[in-house]
Amino acid sequence: MSIRIGIMGYGNLGRGVECAIRQNPDMELVAVFTRRDPADVMILTKTAAICRAEEAAQWKDKIDVLILCGGSATDLPKQTPEYAKLFNVVDSFDTHARIPEHFAAVDAAAKESGKIGIISVGWDPGLFSLNRMYANAILPEGKDYTFWGKGVSQGHSDAIRRIEGVKDGKQYTIPVESALEAVRNGENPELSTREKHTRECFVVLEEGADANKVEQEIKTMPNYFADYDTTVHFISEEELKANHSGIPHGGFVLRSGRTGWEKENSHLIEYRLKLDSNPEFTSSVIVAYARAAYRLAKEGQTGCKTVFDIAPAYLSAKDGAELRASML
Amino acid sequence: MSIRIGIMGYGNLGRGVECAIRQNPDMELVAVFTRRDPADVMILTKTAAICRAEEAAQWKDKIDVLILCGGSATDLPKQTPEYAKLFNVVDSFDTHARIPEHFAAVDAAAKESGKIGIISVGWDPGLFSLNRMYANAILPEGKDYTFWGKGVSQGHSDAIRRIEGVKDGKQYTIPVESALEAVRNGENPELSTREKHTRECFVVLEEGADANKVEQEIKTMPNYFADYDTTVHFISEEELKANHSGIPHGGFVLRSGRTGWEKENSHLIEYRLKLDSNPEFTSSVIVAYARAAYRLAKEGQTGCKTVFDIAPAYLSAKDGAELRASML
Repeated sequence: MSIRIGIMGYGNLGRGVECAIRQNPDMELVAVFTRRDPADVMILTKTAAICRAEEAAQWKDKIDVLILCGGSATDLPKQTPEYAKLFNVVDSFDTHARIPEHFAAVDAAAKESGKIGIISVGWDPGLFSLNRMYANAILPEGKDYTFWGKGVSQGHSDAIRRIEGVKDGKQYTIPVESALEAVRNGENPELSTREKHTRECFVVLEEGADANKVEQEIKTMPNYFADYDTTVHFISEEELKANHSGIPHGGFVLRSGRTGWEKENSHLIEYRLKLDSNPEFTSSVIVAYARAAYRLAKEGQTGCKTVFDIAPAYLSAKDGAELRASML
Repeated sequence: MSIRIGIMGYGNLGRGVECAIRQNPDMELVAVFTRRDPADVMILTKTAAICRAEEAAQWKDKIDVLILCGGSATDLPKQTPEYAKLFNVVDSFDTHARIPEHFAAVDAAAKESGKIGIISVGWDPGLFSLNRMYANAILPEGKDYTFWGKGVSQGHSDAIRRIEGVKDGKQYTIPVESALEAVRNGENPELSTREKHTRECFVVLEEGADANKVEQEIKTMPNYFADYDTTVHFISEEELKANHSGIPHGGFVLRSGRTGWEKENSHLIEYRLKLDSNPEFTSSVIVAYARAAYRLAKEGQTGCKTVFDIAPAYLSAKDGAELRASML
């Protein structure tokens, strides 16, 4: 019998989850829940139902894992604890600073209901966190580096689009290659914000807007751009659509550390992602952890878990003997 | 109270474990067991005992985890099941093809004694296996690549040294950069043995030996060199000692895969190790898993485990709340 999955929220992430389920034959999408009118929502999976979010409770016994595809700012802090009362849930909560309180809320709800809630699944938090943790456990004396990109930052793209005179825009975060190389060479550099990443903006102006003014406003915007070397390109709407409509992302997690009685030897652990589609990759991670949620629940485990708490084998459709024979 | 560790076998790996323990304040080396005369063995840790291997049973209640630092060919297949009858054990068994039978033997012994046995810990098998497994679970449709090096292959160096006329020698396995780049570019190349790695040999000849004959013998040696592009350099004993006495290694695990309803998006996951000292890094991984063995045993778990079966958090000296706050 396949693992029955529900999706709450059908944006880029929900659609990515739908696609990922199709690549995992042990899973089945049974329902998509939306705040919109279901009549207005088109999904790709012919066999799945489209339902109003308020109807979710009725699916309590027909869904093994509910994947929450809302945003971290307002949706997930409410939704994940709420739905953990009824379902095993997985979310991609990514506000790093608020993870402890989110964990506590989901843990309490899931322990009471006897369900599993896996939070902060994706690549950062998620796979990047795993790699930081493994690398720190293995090389206790060392230095961590995370670089993001080259990729689209939604937050920074939104910030550009809020500027007066801007019709549309896209922002790429780009790691500084020389900084990356210094880390790889074991130089353990101290890197400022400016030395780690640059920002590149592609902007479509409203008719009659002042390009110089827009450029200055972008480059001096506190928090978003002021601490970075930022390049601004003005392009046409057609060009933006043709060349900048994807949502690529990725990045690097590195740890450089020393071993030996006198710390005479140096080592580098590097993990890199290069992603054509940030939401689809994130979704693929989430779906693997949905399998884990299903299995943990079957074993009778309850409460909130993160990627740190879950043995890797739970993610794979293969059993232990197959994994040992083929991948160890 | 710290985790009390014993080391069985004091070669490069045993010494690496000793160094790694020093970097983990929650652990303590209590005894080193050797097949040599203890009087002839010098260790670095002043507070640890040096004992004959046969005395190990007497330490049954004074050691929390015994780390087995013997070889995979003949030592570990016997030692790991044997010592799992008395101790929680960790080994670095690396004969990939024989892992299933080794697992079965250790599992039976450890289940009977109520102990934990973690096998095949290190970087390959070990961290590379973990990365293959995570990447496969996340991108079910894709292609795996493993490249080793640049690094010293002990097996190939030994093979060179067995040739008549060779006084000493060292062999480096080197990944072919263009093959690696093709994988990174998402080209999904089919790569032959020759296309993935080259081999570079540094050889010291016996006096009067025929260099041409030695070179031909190396380059045509079946299994070891015949399927590779091999370069042979003849150097002096002094040069070998000065420039080639380290034991560096490393490599790359990559998975290239596709997502999307029509598989329209491509992704790359890359994991890389660059290691000054192969045995010291392997030891550092083993010591982190010794912490896991200790904790699993405390929870009452028994039997054989691999890196696939162990939740990452067990490796870290930090607790769950600390990990979530600092690394997620």
